[in-house]
Amino acid sequence: MGNSFGTSFVLTSFGESHGAAVGGVIDGFPANLEIDLSFVQSELDRRRPGLEAFSSPRQEEDRLEILSGIYQGRSTGAPIAFLVRNRDQKPEDYNHLAGVYRPSHADFTWQQKYGFRDPRGGGRSSARETVVRVAAGALAKLFLRTYGIGFSSRITRIGEYLIEEPGTGSEGRQDEPSLRASSPDAPEIMAYLEKLKSAGDTTGGVISCTIAGVPAGLGEPVFDKLQADLARAMLSINAARGFEYGSGFKAAAMKGSEHNDPFIRDGERIRTLTNHSGGIQGGISNGEEIVFRVAFKPVPTLMKDQQTVNLAGDPVILKGKGRHDICIVPRALPVVEAMAALVIADHLKRNGERVNGKEGISN
Amino acid sequence: MGNSFGTSFVLTSFGESHGAAVGGVIDGFPANLEIDLSFVQSELDRRRPGLEAFSSPRQEEDRLEILSGIYQGRSTGAPIAFLVRNRDQKPEDYNHLAGVYRPSHADFTWQQKYGFRDPRGGGRSSARETVVRVAAGALAKLFLRTYGIGFSSRITRIGEYLIEEPGTGSEGRQDEPSLRASSPDAPEIMAYLEKLKSAGDTTGGVISCTIAGVPAGLGEPVFDKLQADLARAMLSINAARGFEYGSGFKAAAMKGSEHNDPFIRDGERIRTLTNHSGGIQGGISNGEEIVFRVAFKPVPTLMKDQQTVNLAGDPVILKGKGRHDICIVPRALPVVEAMAALVIADHLKRNGERVNGKEGISN
Amino acid sequence: MGNSFGTSFVLTSFGESHGAAVGGVIDGFPANLEIDLSFVQSELDRRRPGLEAFSSPRQEEDRLEILSGIYQGRSTGAPIAFLVRNRDQKPEDYNHLAGVYRPSHADFTWQQKYGFRDPRGGGRSSARETVVRVAAGALAKLFLRTYGIGFSSRITRIGEYLIEEPGTGSEGRQDEPSLRASSPDAPEIMAYLEKLKSAGDTTGGVISCTIAGVPAGLGEPVFDKLQADLARAMLSINAARGFEYGSGFKAAAMKGSEHNDPFIRDGERIRTLTNHSGGIQGGISNGEEIVFRVAFKPVPTLMKDQQTVNLAGDPVILKGKGRHDICIVPRALPVVEAMAALVIADHLKRNGERVNGKEGISN
Amino acid sequence: MGNSFGTSFVLTSFGESHGAAVGGVIDGFPANLEIDLSFVQSELDRRRPGLEAFSSPRQEEDRLEILSGIYQGRSTGAPIAFLVRNRDQKPEDYNHLAGVYRPSHADFTWQQKYGFRDPRGGGRSSARETVVRVAAGALAKLFLRTYGIGFSSRITRIGEYLIEEPGTGSEGRQDEPSLRASSPDAPEIMAYLEKLKSAGDTTGGVISCTIAGVPAGLGEPVFDKLQADLARAMLSINAARGFEYGSGFKAAAMKGSEHNDPFIRDGERIRTLTNHSGGIQGGISNGEEIVFRVAFKPVPTLMKDQQTVNLAGDPVILKGKGRHDICIVPRALPVVEAMAALVIADHLKRNGERVNGKEGISN
Repeated sequence: MGNSFGTSFVLTSFGESHGAAVGGVIDGFPANLEIDLSFVQSELDRRRPGLEAFSSPRQEEDRLEILSGIYQGRSTGAPIAFLVRNRDQKPEDYNHLAGVYRPSHADFTWQQKYGFRDPRGGGRSSARETVVRVAAGALAKLFLRTYGIGFSSRITRIGEYLIEEPGTGSEGRQDEPSLRASSPDAPEIMAYLEKLKSAGDTTGGVISCTIAGVPAGLGEPVFDKLQADLARAMLSINAARGFEYGSGFKAAAMKGSEHNDPFIRDGERIRTLTNHSGGIQGGISNGEEIVFRVAFKPVPTLMKDQQTVNLAGDPVILKGKGRHDICIVPRALPVVEAMAALVIADHLKRNGERVNGKEGISN
Repeated sequence: MGNSFGTSFVLTSFGESHGAAVGGVIDGFPANLEIDLSFVQSELDRRRPGLEAFSSPRQEEDRLEILSGIYQGRSTGAPIAFLVRNRDQKPEDYNHLAGVYRPSHADFTWQQKYGFRDPRGGGRSSARETVVRVAAGALAKLFLRTYGIGFSSRITRIGEYLIEEPGTGSEGRQDEPSLRASSPDAPEIMAYLEKLKSAGDTTGGVISCTIAGVPAGLGEPVFDKLQADLARAMLSINAARGFEYGSGFKAAAMKGSEHNDPFIRDGERIRTLTNHSGGIQGGISNGEEIVFRVAFKPVPTLMKDQQTVNLAGDPVILKGKGRHDICIVPRALPVVEAMAALVIADHLKRNGERVNGKEGISN
Repeated sequence: MGNSFGTSFVLTSFGESHGAAVGGVIDGFPANLEIDLSFVQSELDRRRPGLEAFSSPRQEEDRLEILSGIYQGRSTGAPIAFLVRNRDQKPEDYNHLAGVYRPSHADFTWQQKYGFRDPRGGGRSSARETVVRVAAGALAKLFLRTYGIGFSSRITRIGEYLIEEPGTGSEGRQDEPSLRASSPDAPEIMAYLEKLKSAGDTTGGVISCTIAGVPAGLGEPVFDKLQADLARAMLSINAARGFEYGSGFKAAAMKGSEHNDPFIRDGERIRTLTNHSGGIQGGISNGEEIVFRVAFKPVPTLMKDQQTVNLAGDPVILKGKGRHDICIVPRALPVVEAMAALVIADHLKRNGERVNGKEGISN
Repeated sequence: MGNSFGTSFVLTSFGESHGAAVGGVIDGFPANLEIDLSFVQSELDRRRPGLEAFSSPRQEEDRLEILSGIYQGRSTGAPIAFLVRNRDQKPEDYNHLAGVYRPSHADFTWQQKYGFRDPRGGGRSSARETVVRVAAGALAKLFLRTYGIGFSSRITRIGEYLIEEPGTGSEGRQDEPSLRASSPDAPEIMAYLEKLKSAGDTTGGVISCTIAGVPAGLGEPVFDKLQADLARAMLSINAARGFEYGSGFKAAAMKGSEHNDPFIRDGERIRTLTNHSGGIQGGISNGEEIVFRVAFKPVPTLMKDQQTVNLAGDPVILKGKGRHDICIVPRALPVVEAMAALVIADHLKRNGERVNGKEGISN
């Protein structure tokens, strides 16, 4: 019963890694909005495997098919259902896995919970399900654009390497494509990933996401605070291990006099001088940029031998095999943004689509 | 519309800091369970202000009053409503605040969202609301006890000071009462807090929480993963800024071969050798201890002058005044546990109150 | 888990007939609205027992106490919690009932479901709970008034007697107070009720309710159609047995050419010439008056002997005793209106509080 | 946001009459259950148009396609997504309708609510959407079968004709196929329908539904009473105008002493001697047969001229054209049962899948 996300802008997700299709239904999408499906497709392309040197070579076209809710290029207010067929299914790659519990995968817990599971590529627990999130998030972005709300994200850590914030000497530097980030350490990081790949090993990373243009007033205290729903959204992504917003964990070591954001007048607006609050105060957006970070663990599928047990509990050696990423964070960027977009779209609708007393849809 | 928490074990919270009362309604509490109200009161006492040298001297008795749902000492299956009267109301302490926006408080955002607010002690945005969470969490703990599930929490950071994990030389050491933690650095930490107090300043901290006895099988992928609901619960607490579980943010820098938890057989059970997963895999509990951490920002109310603006946006100096904590984390311990208990109770009920195929209530 | 009603304007209800109090929490009440508590009290007075010759002589003052959400006479956007103390508790009246299952009451089913119950006056299953609905409905009416939406209801049947629709010769006729209806048959009906009372018997009735001023556009197909939520609301009222809207059950015998409502132009508006649709088409209000009817069964508590069984299943004779109504429908009028108001308030908020493209709150 | 139904067994529906497909996602379907897809297909066949003399000649194969949630013929606990392609699309039949509001259809209200609509065959408001309900209801029936719960329904009125209850002289009589009912009046009723058809007119009817095998204990007072959720389910069906259960509207005219159902002992069970309660007392099933009735209005599409207005409000004559039913009730039988099955499945899961203290799944 946990496959729907949102209250007023609701995504219901379905599909397994090697079933017929993955897809979703969005209920609550505003009517009469022009839908640019090429944008949705471009977002899907951002998360596609097979693009990067260090990503899984699984080749999926990930062609979006719309089943309902759009007529003559505009949303009708009816649910928007969509699917993406699974084409490059190689279930035989997974035959050797049906009888064992892969370490730090969901095999064991799904078996415990449901008593039965689809072992092909992790079935429902596969990160292939994030296709659905990215497509739905792209539709949410189209809605939020009409309010001037935009999303961006970047990698701030890959394994042992911190990647500097933009604006600290990074101007004019080109993104390293595989990292989707620029860094003076880029060659060193690439060598590090290469070494991990040779060793059949993997690593994790951190993504920082910024949401610009969110008006003051979104968030529903005391439980559905904006940061609470963002945290839930992020921790629902495969491999996510932590969430922080604004000053985050660093805030714990700060003094109140350093951390507080003084209010100032900026023209007609009241703003804050600093943004340790990360754009959210008391659970409600304050009109500043929303900033948060998400930590991801290393990919658990290794191309080296691992100790584990079979379904009977007997020790077995799991051989590395299949198609997998060395580091998931480059492909997780659009997923993080998509989940953020679903949260903001939901809260905008929960707030009656009102923004500073004005209604928004202008297209 | 954000004042209810949970799906099958639902807390609805109400009340303002200086209104008549704070309270809640729990819907979905199992019937026919013995209710030890003295335990609930003892949990409320754990979060009470006025107990510690460095906490707010506000004196509330926080006497729990049950309005419904319990008959002859047992739950009936009907909603359990409770309230705690606000007795030590000194709204005049807050008169000087009605016209200004306190930095890093919720004054500005609530005014933006609702166009009107109760300025007395922060009204609904006050941490006084956590009384409700602690009472409801205590009731949830009584339910979970019948399944052998228990909660513990400790401070792992106060401002600049990390506090060691138990078992690393801390045996036999007494807790410093104000810290609710033992540490060889305790005298130093107390001096640090004393210094902050003299300066009218505050600091933050980190809490680590452990849930023991959770059976494998709780959590509802893909969105209502157990860690996602824990993250949401924690980030809904006043002043929380970050959440991580298992290896958390550190996982980002690890290799897969270090991070993966090998499965082993332990008697009749399948377990993991290490617990970097923090007791949750694929969004579902795996039977190991659930471990997570929550970061709290410094208390934003300072006893020193601060720059801010009034409702018109004109700059004003805010004088420190009122009753407040230097560091919230000692009082946040029962709040963190309470929210964790609400999450686990909810997921246990969502799972049909089944645990490894067996039903639980034995009292 | 069934004690909350609504999606965006949510009432959570609590309390037992002979517990400390009955009460509720409304989450989603719009901020900054003036609250006329004397109106809420007057609605509670409409459903009070002890007013009529044929109602239960239980004397409750039913004084409303507000616990939160209202400050300086205006709503704050925080949850509005309220309670009504149970004063005239005579639980000894019910001691003889703890061991038997009263026919057509909830004793047996509650015992089956929960394994334990509060036998005092039916506990949670008592119609005393409708106090909560009436208070919450009155608050909803205050909100809806600002949109020009109003509610009225009348009795159209008491037992064997149909009561004519207003406008069919009833002008100038005074309501018979015990009936809250005017009828040329009023003396005969009163004699009939008197006879039932003497015989220790009871009867049922039908209520017709009209909602005026609802703008076109409320209702959320395909499942949360406006009539579906009205039906659910009405069938959740104690003793309700049927619901119909517009032409209702009579529609089944009509021809399409009789039943269809032709569209016409009326000044600037498009309207329907007839209103067999009862103000709702395709699950969405069409701007005409919403009209529906609710059937109530006879009060099951009789002042005469009845055959039943005790908890062990052994046959016993249940003696009539206690305080009860001969016919519930006069007191059910404000309950029907209140539930209708909760449905309309919820759908207005779900629709973003937009009405024909305009926002509403004007007070 | 009204396209999901249920709390613990949730159907999300999508699709328009002349879009690519109609379909649904069921979240909360129990894992590890054998799925007989031929049964689901046979239920779809029961509602198919084109089968009967008096139904719309639209020819759809209505082939069910499963997209997820079933592996090797068993449910996995993941969402079951399914769709039925719309093959026999003749949108040109509807071109003449884009600019007018058909009387007693949803054209006007959808235009008012959404500002934009898909006019092809009513789009989302078409009864074609009931395909989704029937498929999902069939899956729910498969689940409920494992608990011994079964559904049956019959027509009790077609237009002016009441159709007798079975057991009152109907033994051995064959169903008239077009009526899906037996009646001594069958020839007369068929002639009546023929006459309506010649006149381009339509009529309504009433369906009676019985649910056998529901254990005592299902239903969640005080708002989610079993009858309340059944009423909501039924009134969400296209053309439904009324709902009653047990003695229904007739109860209003009865005496309490006639209406009450005496409890008796029947072997080991406690039962009721009569069943005026329709199997539900206090909102909770009591173990007797659940009995309810649903009234349907006449089909609003006529094959004769009707007065209406165009989008500008100008009067126009609407010509009859297209493919439509004379009376919807024969095809509504599986829809009524399907919605009932969704309600019972949801309440069984909400009750923890417990039935008289025992768990159920045995297949």
